[in-house]
Amino acid sequence: MVVLGDKEYYKGIDKINFEGKDSDNPLAFRYYNPEQIVAGKTMREHFKFAVSYWYSFGGNGSDVFGQATQTLAWNEFREPIQAAKNRADAAFEFIGKMGFGYYCFHDHDLVQEGQTFTQTELRLATMTDYLKEKQAASGIKALWGAANCFSNPRYMNGAATNPDFRVVARAAAQVKLALDTTIALGGESYVFWGAREGYLSLLNTDMKRELDHMGAFLAQARDYAREQGFKGNFLIEPKPMEPSKHQYDFDCATTIGFLREYGLEKDFKINIEVNHATMAQHSFPHELEVAAMSGMLGSIDANRGDPQNGWDTSQFPNNIQDVTEAMLVFLKAGGVQGGGVNFDSKIRRNSTDMEDVFLAHIGGADVFARALLTADKIITSSPYESLRKQRYSSFDSGKGKEFEEGKLNFKDLYAIAKENGELELQSGKQELFENIINRYI
Amino acid sequence: MVVLGDKEYYKGIDKINFEGKDSDNPLAFRYYNPEQIVAGKTMREHFKFAVSYWYSFGGNGSDVFGQATQTLAWNEFREPIQAAKNRADAAFEFIGKMGFGYYCFHDHDLVQEGQTFTQTELRLATMTDYLKEKQAASGIKALWGAANCFSNPRYMNGAATNPDFRVVARAAAQVKLALDTTIALGGESYVFWGAREGYLSLLNTDMKRELDHMGAFLAQARDYAREQGFKGNFLIEPKPMEPSKHQYDFDCATTIGFLREYGLEKDFKINIEVNHATMAQHSFPHELEVAAMSGMLGSIDANRGDPQNGWDTSQFPNNIQDVTEAMLVFLKAGGVQGGGVNFDSKIRRNSTDMEDVFLAHIGGADVFARALLTADKIITSSPYESLRKQRYSSFDSGKGKEFEEGKLNFKDLYAIAKENGELELQSGKQELFENIINRYI
Amino acid sequence: MVVLGDKEYYKGIDKINFEGKDSDNPLAFRYYNPEQIVAGKTMREHFKFAVSYWYSFGGNGSDVFGQATQTLAWNEFREPIQAAKNRADAAFEFIGKMGFGYYCFHDHDLVQEGQTFTQTELRLATMTDYLKEKQAASGIKALWGAANCFSNPRYMNGAATNPDFRVVARAAAQVKLALDTTIALGGESYVFWGAREGYLSLLNTDMKRELDHMGAFLAQARDYAREQGFKGNFLIEPKPMEPSKHQYDFDCATTIGFLREYGLEKDFKINIEVNHATMAQHSFPHELEVAAMSGMLGSIDANRGDPQNGWDTSQFPNNIQDVTEAMLVFLKAGGVQGGGVNFDSKIRRNSTDMEDVFLAHIGGADVFARALLTADKIITSSPYESLRKQRYSSFDSGKGKEFEEGKLNFKDLYAIAKENGELELQSGKQELFENIINRYI
Amino acid sequence: MVVLGDKEYYKGIDKINFEGKDSDNPLAFRYYNPEQIVAGKTMREHFKFAVSYWYSFGGNGSDVFGQATQTLAWNEFREPIQAAKNRADAAFEFIGKMGFGYYCFHDHDLVQEGQTFTQTELRLATMTDYLKEKQAASGIKALWGAANCFSNPRYMNGAATNPDFRVVARAAAQVKLALDTTIALGGESYVFWGAREGYLSLLNTDMKRELDHMGAFLAQARDYAREQGFKGNFLIEPKPMEPSKHQYDFDCATTIGFLREYGLEKDFKINIEVNHATMAQHSFPHELEVAAMSGMLGSIDANRGDPQNGWDTSQFPNNIQDVTEAMLVFLKAGGVQGGGVNFDSKIRRNSTDMEDVFLAHIGGADVFARALLTADKIITSSPYESLRKQRYSSFDSGKGKEFEEGKLNFKDLYAIAKENGELELQSGKQELFENIINRYI
Repeated sequence: MVVLGDKEYYKGIDKINFEGKDSDNPLAFRYYNPEQIVAGKTMREHFKFAVSYWYSFGGNGSDVFGQATQTLAWNEFREPIQAAKNRADAAFEFIGKMGFGYYCFHDHDLVQEGQTFTQTELRLATMTDYLKEKQAASGIKALWGAANCFSNPRYMNGAATNPDFRVVARAAAQVKLALDTTIALGGESYVFWGAREGYLSLLNTDMKRELDHMGAFLAQARDYAREQGFKGNFLIEPKPMEPSKHQYDFDCATTIGFLREYGLEKDFKINIEVNHATMAQHSFPHELEVAAMSGMLGSIDANRGDPQNGWDTSQFPNNIQDVTEAMLVFLKAGGVQGGGVNFDSKIRRNSTDMEDVFLAHIGGADVFARALLTADKIITSSPYESLRKQRYSSFDSGKGKEFEEGKLNFKDLYAIAKENGELELQSGKQELFENIINRYI
Repeated sequence: MVVLGDKEYYKGIDKINFEGKDSDNPLAFRYYNPEQIVAGKTMREHFKFAVSYWYSFGGNGSDVFGQATQTLAWNEFREPIQAAKNRADAAFEFIGKMGFGYYCFHDHDLVQEGQTFTQTELRLATMTDYLKEKQAASGIKALWGAANCFSNPRYMNGAATNPDFRVVARAAAQVKLALDTTIALGGESYVFWGAREGYLSLLNTDMKRELDHMGAFLAQARDYAREQGFKGNFLIEPKPMEPSKHQYDFDCATTIGFLREYGLEKDFKINIEVNHATMAQHSFPHELEVAAMSGMLGSIDANRGDPQNGWDTSQFPNNIQDVTEAMLVFLKAGGVQGGGVNFDSKIRRNSTDMEDVFLAHIGGADVFARALLTADKIITSSPYESLRKQRYSSFDSGKGKEFEEGKLNFKDLYAIAKENGELELQSGKQELFENIINRYI
Repeated sequence: MVVLGDKEYYKGIDKINFEGKDSDNPLAFRYYNPEQIVAGKTMREHFKFAVSYWYSFGGNGSDVFGQATQTLAWNEFREPIQAAKNRADAAFEFIGKMGFGYYCFHDHDLVQEGQTFTQTELRLATMTDYLKEKQAASGIKALWGAANCFSNPRYMNGAATNPDFRVVARAAAQVKLALDTTIALGGESYVFWGAREGYLSLLNTDMKRELDHMGAFLAQARDYAREQGFKGNFLIEPKPMEPSKHQYDFDCATTIGFLREYGLEKDFKINIEVNHATMAQHSFPHELEVAAMSGMLGSIDANRGDPQNGWDTSQFPNNIQDVTEAMLVFLKAGGVQGGGVNFDSKIRRNSTDMEDVFLAHIGGADVFARALLTADKIITSSPYESLRKQRYSSFDSGKGKEFEEGKLNFKDLYAIAKENGELELQSGKQELFENIINRYI
Repeated sequence: MVVLGDKEYYKGIDKINFEGKDSDNPLAFRYYNPEQIVAGKTMREHFKFAVSYWYSFGGNGSDVFGQATQTLAWNEFREPIQAAKNRADAAFEFIGKMGFGYYCFHDHDLVQEGQTFTQTELRLATMTDYLKEKQAASGIKALWGAANCFSNPRYMNGAATNPDFRVVARAAAQVKLALDTTIALGGESYVFWGAREGYLSLLNTDMKRELDHMGAFLAQARDYAREQGFKGNFLIEPKPMEPSKHQYDFDCATTIGFLREYGLEKDFKINIEVNHATMAQHSFPHELEVAAMSGMLGSIDANRGDPQNGWDTSQFPNNIQDVTEAMLVFLKAGGVQGGGVNFDSKIRRNSTDMEDVFLAHIGGADVFARALLTADKIITSSPYESLRKQRYSSFDSGKGKEFEEGKLNFKDLYAIAKENGELELQSGKQELFENIINRYI
């Protein structure tokens, strides 16, 4: 029995099962089979699918031009603690019915912020106890926690990068609580998304000073959490803009450079969100690769953007070709380090049936599962990897190897080039690589 | 007499003079007065305006859908050396008539690449001698040199990042020659623009291996040039894409991270091109600021993009508001380090009159000059800077200062926040800052 | 005394006056002098500056990731009618202090929608009476009215284009009330902005059927309003997307084609919003020109977008060069037909001082005024217009004129071309045109 | 034997056959089986796959920053007529080996433009004869012809919209020849792509006058061709920009509006290119739908863009999900009218093996074929269409039907809405629709 609270919110929808790819039951998995082994691990282990507390239990279909469309039955009760418990009941019911193992949260997703800081502290403590019970009863775990340092007006000019020191201190206090909560709930990682760390106008901004503050803030956060015994990864979630005009954690490369500059690279990794990647004019596989090659591929926020829309649409992933190319990088990197795949995706404003959020997660999980299976076959059964490695084979021996080993200077290279004379062109075979991908989809 | 060659190419156009802002002579400067002192330096010293050898003497109006429209009289003679000398004559005549002091070049701008490497070497040697004479006679100097490692088919899969070692060696040989040429001509900096360093498809690419090769290549280039006595800066010119699908030097932050990772940060700085900044979804002032705060603002390529077009239009700058905001950052950074302002801008395909290229450079120089004057007034006469500094004043003393000094940990910040209670919002005053800018334009 | 209600909301800020361009009083106009005559009309007549009821009195700084930051004192009283009256008092106080003559509104800006349609009707009737008094007392008028058929959940699948007929009928009833209100308040135009007329997914959409419904809906709206004696223009406000994935009124050309297809072109014109133009990959001047050449330039919503952000930032206009190019088209078109210039612009989320909204409108009005003055000088004193006309002079007489008159068929043209032989290229002189603009800014 | 010329250019590559979806032969079709019947027609009939003469036999891998990389053996002979015949031999050999039935051409693809117009005329006449023979011998046909009125410098300011009448006449003469050629070769349609019909700067442009000229020009072209007995469709190919800053045929809606305004809608239809659709911020299915609902879906240019690059990358299509959604619209529209599917796609600059162009066309044809099969199954076997129709069922009877029939005015709708009271929300079920698509891929 997956329902742990007093009330069943998702009545009429049973646990989602794997029925296989010929099923036409829309409330069944066709590719996601948690126990199926791929590349040496179960799908459950590969993905650690998580449900985001905010969109899936806090999102209500509102947008910048429209009011809420989706009824969240658990919020009807207005007293904050009871509403929060109801929401937790709904969350655990939903996640249990999906058969997933994880949730992700911001502090104020768990319970509404209080009128005072002390009230917030108390509320979080109460909910931490409640959630520990729910976790124990269900086996569902916290993939990561985070602090929402962007919704409250006090952060309108930034949190760690606010020009007013008092706001920086306030943000630190909030992050301390969020760290405490995450640790108490056994959260496996801790995420920073710097929605307001950046600027609305460069004209009134001292970028260097703000970045120095951000570096110091993150270092202190790390030190505090380590003191409290936190062993997991800290994750930065890059996004180039929105809500800020320009955010500091623009993309993976920018963020990795920042982490190294401020001595944070040992404890921090990256949480890559698909739609954030594409807003920064990178493909999702590109960002995975950038993080992976620095050993910083920490976790994934799964969604997709709209190629015609210039903001974060956070739609559930549905394009098998796109996700397959991502899973190629994922598998080659050995998966994510410590994290999982969190559906930071929201159903559309006009998806107002109770089943829609199930359909959305089912579709997303199935696309990831099918892509994983496809990518695994490409790697294990096709000429894809050998063709790719072959392209670089001139560096595996001889002078090329010497170059890689730092044994050749410019004069040596000059002499080699003179001796070689003009070279034959080597086709990049892009169309062949693309056809191979399609052969396995 | 500014004409040094046998022939006057720009007949009927005399030296461009400063006539002041009420002039309606289209062939006169209205704001650019090289001897005028602004913020302690002459405009000439601030800007070191340079003319790009490629667009201004090699560009012919062709585009991806159309043939050349602009006649380059100096290229009519087909024998390469004579054509190159004619081009040099035209260049020095033009730069002299503009009253600028610098040119920028790629190796194969100076003379067409030979059939063999040895032939190329000889041609470059010949032209180096010729250009040294022209420089001596005119006082015009080389702001920076570069190697064109992108036009030749051999670089279609990359130069330093080519999967074939032999191409990497060939690129090194070419860069060696370009360095030799730059040093011989007294070039003040040396630029790398990695047009083909990136990928057309991630599917066939080993990004990490390619970046390692690029790091090694640049280190060897530096070591060679330093051995030859080169004292100037090496500059990387970021661009996110085009011609590659994705280039490695995406933007300033990415490039600075790369330089630090490979131990190149002491010798390399950034050459920021306006249209490359905007293609990477940054404003030009943003990129200037990112480079400046790392001490890496090396030089500027001046142009503008088209806000509605998604490729590098490289138009001459003409927007006074945009350039003023850039000059604010420029002045606060103390200008560029070692470099100048190179017009990497091309006249439109349908600008086919001889005077058009003069009009374009005049317009561009005037916008920069007017923007510099405006920015200087904003800094010296308006409340702009004090308003901006005031925003951060809580860090100048007390607990804020202690935070900056690393004396406060998360527990301290938590205590401070608890004591402070809820805070008043501080307006960012963006509209006031914007109005101040407009008051001085 | 401009304050008509019981309370002065904008205390300490007096009527904004023209102090001239050397003023450094941030709360004064420097260019906008309502009585100054330009091109035969006062600035007041040219612009009919209007303040948007929604952003300037309803906007509270909230965004998709954050709660309200700006206190709207007039909304503190929670009873809807009293809150609405307070808001009206604040609006008329603000507009009076700005010295503008107009406001623009949606039905539910005037008063919060009721629990039932009948309640909404009654509320609107009450507020109409109140506003008529305020208008009479102040001389401030309604530039245009509109119905907000996008915020309420019932419109999540469209209003006129909803797949459910009952919603279409409901939208018609709402528009009927909004028309009645606009007519009662003497609104000079009536605007349709089809925020939800479009789709979130093409997969579930019958585009043709939806457009047929929209055409029929608009025709019925027109017929009803004409019956009630409305003489003004109906305006469509194009926007390509947001909140919808794709809106039907993508841009001016699309909208004009639609209006003609459904026989609406005699009564409808276009309301062009700057940031909507740029989101559709057009420049603002382009959209003005497209509307003007069809005789459909009805009104303007003034704001600007952010070139780096892909959503509607609705910032106050501040770029003198951009607005000058727009004013060139505006003046050549003889201004807008029936409409004016509405500041559909919002102050930034972090602009929380009471004066900020004044600074924003002052800056915006000044940029428009300066641009108008500049454009007028360009047209009357520079070679700009004669250069432009000269380009087309071959069509003013001879064979070119015969072509324009339809007297030449393809065989004639073939014969003419054969006789002409190859042609000399004519420079487009873009750089000259651009420099002329800058000479007058 | 498919080789008709003296020489076999694509040696070692045999006719491409259908081997079925389990084949791992890269030089075989896996889904494209020309004789397979889908929805009542063979795949051959559905698609009429055509090879573009320009990219596939004229493209050489050059780009705006690089020289040609691909050797076109047939161009080695420099005498224009012989080179043209060689190119034709190569084209027919390639198309024959692919097993496709069509080619598409611009006039100067067939043979290089002459020094004089008369020379061009003669060359075209010679090649027309040669191609008629090749067509007769092979059964391969011309899907459509076109005039290249964009590459020659004379068109730098426009062709039909040039400000100089003499250029307009010259363009007419060229189009006359291209029409004659197309008619002589039995071309089934005739395409206009207005690469230079637009502007580089609005400042020097009289848009209305230019559009009037374009309308007159197209009408004269139509009248001439009809006189010569041409029965096919004229097609406009929309593109928003590139090479122009802004092209007049921005997208389908703009073009259809233009055609109707100038009375051309009976003879003209649209040729939709995928990458042009996406550059205009529309999806490919959107543009298909817009054209189809006006009865103007004439033909398709198949390719794809790069979601991260802002120019026309013209890559071969490879995304099964994207193409499936397009084929849904295609099948529901009953396919294209008169046209086919032309691969206006180019292999990548670094695809330099002879087989690469085969791989590219095979991959593209297979994606289309698989998408057609999938879309057909979705339409015939899934609930997709019935779910979509159900959404609109309120208009199939009762008051909704009366509304569609124009029997209800605003007062009627007001009464209906009042009676209905508040309405229940109807989910748009987007996630379900998306999952259905994925179930069939």
